[in-house]
Amino acid sequence: MDYRRLLDAAAAAALATAGQGRVADYIPALAAADPEAFGMAVATVDGELYGVGDWERPFSIQSVSKLFSLALALAHGGDALWRGVGREPSGNPFNSLVQLETEHGIPRNPFINAGALVVTDRLQSLTGDASGAVREFLRRESGNPLLDTDPVVAASEAEHGHRNAALAHFIASHGNLENPVETVLDHYYAHCAIAASCRDLVLAGSFLARYGVRTDGTRLMSRSEAKRVNAVLLTCGTYDAAGDFAFRVGLPGKSGVGGGILAILPGRAAVCAWGPRLDQAGNSVAAVTALDTLTTLSGCSIF
Amino acid sequence: MDYRRLLDAAAAAALATAGQGRVADYIPALAAADPEAFGMAVATVDGELYGVGDWERPFSIQSVSKLFSLALALAHGGDALWRGVGREPSGNPFNSLVQLETEHGIPRNPFINAGALVVTDRLQSLTGDASGAVREFLRRESGNPLLDTDPVVAASEAEHGHRNAALAHFIASHGNLENPVETVLDHYYAHCAIAASCRDLVLAGSFLARYGVRTDGTRLMSRSEAKRVNAVLLTCGTYDAAGDFAFRVGLPGKSGVGGGILAILPGRAAVCAWGPRLDQAGNSVAAVTALDTLTTLSGCSIF
Amino acid sequence: MDYRRLLDAAAAAALATAGQGRVADYIPALAAADPEAFGMAVATVDGELYGVGDWERPFSIQSVSKLFSLALALAHGGDALWRGVGREPSGNPFNSLVQLETEHGIPRNPFINAGALVVTDRLQSLTGDASGAVREFLRRESGNPLLDTDPVVAASEAEHGHRNAALAHFIASHGNLENPVETVLDHYYAHCAIAASCRDLVLAGSFLARYGVRTDGTRLMSRSEAKRVNAVLLTCGTYDAAGDFAFRVGLPGKSGVGGGILAILPGRAAVCAWGPRLDQAGNSVAAVTALDTLTTLSGCSIF
Amino acid sequence: MDYRRLLDAAAAAALATAGQGRVADYIPALAAADPEAFGMAVATVDGELYGVGDWERPFSIQSVSKLFSLALALAHGGDALWRGVGREPSGNPFNSLVQLETEHGIPRNPFINAGALVVTDRLQSLTGDASGAVREFLRRESGNPLLDTDPVVAASEAEHGHRNAALAHFIASHGNLENPVETVLDHYYAHCAIAASCRDLVLAGSFLARYGVRTDGTRLMSRSEAKRVNAVLLTCGTYDAAGDFAFRVGLPGKSGVGGGILAILPGRAAVCAWGPRLDQAGNSVAAVTALDTLTTLSGCSIF
Repeated sequence: MDYRRLLDAAAAAALATAGQGRVADYIPALAAADPEAFGMAVATVDGELYGVGDWERPFSIQSVSKLFSLALALAHGGDALWRGVGREPSGNPFNSLVQLETEHGIPRNPFINAGALVVTDRLQSLTGDASGAVREFLRRESGNPLLDTDPVVAASEAEHGHRNAALAHFIASHGNLENPVETVLDHYYAHCAIAASCRDLVLAGSFLARYGVRTDGTRLMSRSEAKRVNAVLLTCGTYDAAGDFAFRVGLPGKSGVGGGILAILPGRAAVCAWGPRLDQAGNSVAAVTALDTLTTLSGCSIF
Repeated sequence: MDYRRLLDAAAAAALATAGQGRVADYIPALAAADPEAFGMAVATVDGELYGVGDWERPFSIQSVSKLFSLALALAHGGDALWRGVGREPSGNPFNSLVQLETEHGIPRNPFINAGALVVTDRLQSLTGDASGAVREFLRRESGNPLLDTDPVVAASEAEHGHRNAALAHFIASHGNLENPVETVLDHYYAHCAIAASCRDLVLAGSFLARYGVRTDGTRLMSRSEAKRVNAVLLTCGTYDAAGDFAFRVGLPGKSGVGGGILAILPGRAAVCAWGPRLDQAGNSVAAVTALDTLTTLSGCSIF
Repeated sequence: MDYRRLLDAAAAAALATAGQGRVADYIPALAAADPEAFGMAVATVDGELYGVGDWERPFSIQSVSKLFSLALALAHGGDALWRGVGREPSGNPFNSLVQLETEHGIPRNPFINAGALVVTDRLQSLTGDASGAVREFLRRESGNPLLDTDPVVAASEAEHGHRNAALAHFIASHGNLENPVETVLDHYYAHCAIAASCRDLVLAGSFLARYGVRTDGTRLMSRSEAKRVNAVLLTCGTYDAAGDFAFRVGLPGKSGVGGGILAILPGRAAVCAWGPRLDQAGNSVAAVTALDTLTTLSGCSIF
Repeated sequence: MDYRRLLDAAAAAALATAGQGRVADYIPALAAADPEAFGMAVATVDGELYGVGDWERPFSIQSVSKLFSLALALAHGGDALWRGVGREPSGNPFNSLVQLETEHGIPRNPFINAGALVVTDRLQSLTGDASGAVREFLRRESGNPLLDTDPVVAASEAEHGHRNAALAHFIASHGNLENPVETVLDHYYAHCAIAASCRDLVLAGSFLARYGVRTDGTRLMSRSEAKRVNAVLLTCGTYDAAGDFAFRVGLPGKSGVGGGILAILPGRAAVCAWGPRLDQAGNSVAAVTALDTLTTLSGCSIF
């Protein structure tokens, strides 16, 4: 596959979306993002690395971090995780409390905020430092020792975090948190506020393209487990637009309100696209367009 | 009206419900209540006072306190309150988050937990000491200077209060709290944990039977405002069973999970019945039966 | 009480709402109503009759008919009705399917469309002619032998009645209809499409003010049963605005999208006000204002 | 791939589930199915055909027919279909009205009952005979001229079809049906009541494995469109358990309450497994187990 040509075409298509969508503005630190920035990178299973545009510029990874906290919680604790969180699409906006109430405090899947709080809680129990575990994994896989949480973003999330606090207390009221609410929220904000580039993220996510094998050749999880993480990414990874993302792009992927989307071509490569303007579902307009272009031109969707 | 005879008949009917229902057990302090206790009192607008059974024994008034926090918030702040809380029946269990989410953080009415948190918040803004204001009102009207918050109950509520914390944070996320979440919760727990007897409550509630006039003859609120509080009590005062309570008893009233119900015969009297065993909607089996008997025998429902 | 003076004051207040609200337009026959029409009538328990404005002009009574179908179903069949329909406020727009699904085909109360279909079904079983029973009762009580269903309105309701058909089939799917869906819908549309005036309705509704006694002195239902119907009217009679109607007006009442509201002053009188413009909850702006004025000036709300 | 060996292993695993789950019993015709029957078949893109157990025994395909009505509606009418039906997972039981009400009569996806009614309606508009179009397609692709609707099942569905009638009327009330409710329901019941075998279904479904090319080599739809149908199958094809099916099996697939599941290995084969006992989500216990075994042993899931 000629990834260089594909990246150029994808970037051109993304560029044509300029002006569409809105930068997330629920906290000042995110609202300050450059709305016209765009970057994209590919890391193949063979260790090749390609990039275009602002592919080495760090951005707030936000919910993309949930892919890593899930993988690490499964790697450390195995299937016990699934007793506290489901793996069904939510069919509701990503921060909804409604479903949580109906379903007795068991969040629908690990990628809605409620589910990610449970995953963070379990990772905290397993490692003693949930956000540290995510950060260390990203540093090691990307080879970028400077990769870190942006403390301004984390503080801003906490300050504006009444809704996440509501979710956490609600889950706790159903007995589905092992750690104090404050601890879980702190680590949740800390891993969501990590700043990383497309380059960093494709390297860190390439273990899923290699069916569980890290960049150094060691295994993080079994082949079967990696395929299952990919399945959850496909059905639940892009908020309430997972069906549409599967329809248009056809790859497992995880998006964040910072504008990044990390997608997996199983057996081939990890791809990350980034542009801060979001559509109504909270996914980057430029990144969805770029990924759509890449799979349309290459014919390499999973379907 | 021969209140002595009515109280005896109501008490006999309540006695016949022995064994029905379950004592609230979500916190240990409530679970310790004597399940077979029963008391009932009447305070007429003319200052007569009648009682039967355990009518002078204090119990945890819990949500009955919401009648007083509402009345005081209206007396101090007037109709501005209704910008932050509605006055429609909720049609859902009393601690539901679902409706709150659909309706953008404006609780349906002042008597579901969410609404009572908003009322407590506004009373805190108006008085600087929301729970103190409720306590002082109860002391003054009842003439019982020893009436107080039970600190064990308040602490226990706080300890098991993840759901109320979730509600408060959720309301705050919609910008509908003026004070910090912790402050609002503390005062909410403090006024719910007041211990008072049927005697205390009928005296303190008799201002609604006198259309707004306190026991000392001074006016707390206008006649029209008192009638409106009675209307809210009737449509929203007994959790998700307000329709059934209106159908069976036919009086405005407010119940609490401590087993008390304070009801109003407008222009005539305040009545309070207490028995710790609750039905599925959270209302005292004995108290509902006693009040039903009283209105059936006397024909004095409002309808 | 000087009803003549009260009616004049109420009419003046209603007049001042001219231009507010919108005439129901979901079927052409209703959309053709004169938006500025207004009438109001009072029938006392002693047989006095007062009217103002268009009080003798017939209009489509629509959901006001549900008061009569409920009363007749109870009079003929007693409390068995309550096995198939509840008596709690719905807390949702009047034609909602959501609650019906959650609660297994038992409608919340007899006045939401779903509940009125169940009531019509039971009245059909009891009388063999549900809409005829309502019509005959109205004719006899009002002394108006010409009072009848408007066939154009009934046909138009049926033609645009997919939502009511959905409700009926849904209730049937839960086994909560005794008669065929088509029969129930036909009779439902037929009694809702009755045309009657304020004069007709206060006479027909005065049995509730007389605690169950018809205009000819015979008893339709017991005193206790009449009071209970009044209780259901208060908590559920005005769609999703029952709490607000109790708060503002403070009387049991039933409204219809034709713009009529029939209200009860227990022990005193029946009052009906009519104006076709509706507020967002589906209640007549002019009629609510007129009734609010009447109870405010007279101080005769039930609270 | 040694399909013969895989089928034997899958059948053995399915056999071990004997006694688990319950045969659908909402209509007598389905309840009569042999609970211990099991069959499985594979049709490769190269025209090879394999089968095991009762793979040539016809069963009621039920919702599996929705795959074909969707494909034909898209083949005849293109993307216009997506204006009337979404492609997001529903996150609710398959026959729910709740989401339909919230989302204004646009069903979430083509595979919940509501969505399948809209698809049937559009196919009726496009072909003049929606159920005939599905039947003819299945006959031609399977080469089985005797394949037909079971009239007893269709009549039984109609007789017990109040809930589907409710859905159809509700969609019609939102203006989202082009044909009369009765017509749509008749054709819906007729294509769901088709009896076909695993053999018939893998042949008829193999066009999706061949990216849109029929068994005779002609093209039904574009490659891109076929991949998109596969995407919708994966995210929405197995009721409220789509996430779990993707997680365990990892293939696009469509299940029916008759116990059949038709799944696609893109570029390789169509697979169908059948066993009448259903799990709580309405999917065949034996078929899910058999497909899980097949992808686990072969490692050929799409992820």
